Amino acid sequence: MELLEERIKQDGQALSEHVLKVDSFLNHQIDPKLMQEIGKEFASRFSNESITKIVTIESSGIAPAVMAGLYLNVPVVFARKRKSLTLSEGLLTASVHSFTKNETNEISISKKYVNEDDNVLIIDDFLANGQAALGLIEIVKKSGAHVAGIGIVIEKSFQDGAEKLKELGIRVESLAQIAALSNGKVIFKPEKAEELI
Amino acid sequence: MELLEERIKQDGQALSEHVLKVDSFLNHQIDPKLMQEIGKEFASRFSNESITKIVTIESSGIAPAVMAGLYLNVPVVFARKRKSLTLSEGLLTASVHSFTKNETNEISISKKYVNEDDNVLIIDDFLANGQAALGLIEIVKKSGAHVAGIGIVIEKSFQDGAEKLKELGIRVESLAQIAALSNGKVIFKPEKAEELI
Repeated sequence: MELLEERIKQDGQALSEHVLKVDSFLNHQIDPKLMQEIGKEFASRFSNESITKIVTIESSGIAPAVMAGLYLNVPVVFARKRKSLTLSEGLLTASVHSFTKNETNEISISKKYVNEDDNVLIIDDFLANGQAALGLIEIVKKSGAHVAGIGIVIEKSFQDGAEKLKELGIRVESLAQIAALSNGKVIFKPEKAEELI
Repeated sequence: MELLEERIKQDGQALSEHVLKVDSFLNHQIDPKLMQEIGKEFASRFSNESITKIVTIESSGIAPAVMAGLYLNVPVVFARKRKSLTLSEGLLTASVHSFTKNETNEISISKKYVNEDDNVLIIDDFLANGQAALGLIEIVKKSGAHVAGIGIVIEKSFQDGAEKLKELGIRVESLAQIAALSNGKVIFKPEKAEELI
């Protein structure tokens, strides 16, 4: 998605070979018009999948997910993250380890809002090693729903998350794919490289 | 806002005299089309205020704030909540006590994204005792920006948050105002009662 790649080039900060900061339009400050275009793009890519629900994770997944939900005309459910869950009745949970923050969160969604009749599109802001995405897949599968695919705003293609998901047979659509972060520069993979399996 | 009141009547659950659960369209599952209408309504109410930025708080404030940002054509910044902040360099922070959860969080925004040139609209999902709103006002004021007003999706008018904010001279626009929760029923205040000061 060219608009997004341009924005990453312009405003993203490659802080190291592994860390890309996009706080100015996605993770802290949010550009609503860009989110709208991102939502339209996800809706277009998954328009033939009969999606009934979007599942994302707080907080940075919410804006792109809600815009995708608007254009796919489906509700959005966001998983909550907590250190530990005391009350888990009625919840579907999974453990997600964050290597960046070196902490494990339990993520959860209510059983009420995702069930076996659903065909779910999972959306998240970043895909790196795939831990969050795998946790979301786990809770969606626990609900009995089908995972129709995963929409990612920014994929760090130099980490193995996308590979892991594709090995599970899951369609991954990443709007920007980063091949490398090198000397403060962002190098993109060419668009549309084997996104469909 | 009639559409919102209808939805609260239909899907909200008055769990006690103080607790209204709107997990099915706002706090956990999100209805994107309703959020779009909410965004348009906030934009309309604050259209003459020359808003330059919206500030909200994760997670449930993000969807209505992003939609309002879309129609006001301004960026949105969401404050993060954490138990304690180890790194606070470059951050504006405030302490917010949640009576519901009985915990105090530090909320923060980056100095980079709100400054003295900004005219800020604060948006949040709920207004009860006003703790979160007061924390958001505190960090916006620390940035040097002006607080143009506060947009609230659901105000519990039987708690004193709205009064506290109006005493500070701040314009509060609440799209639904709940006079009472009684025997599982939601009783609304008549619309447009002294929202302007």
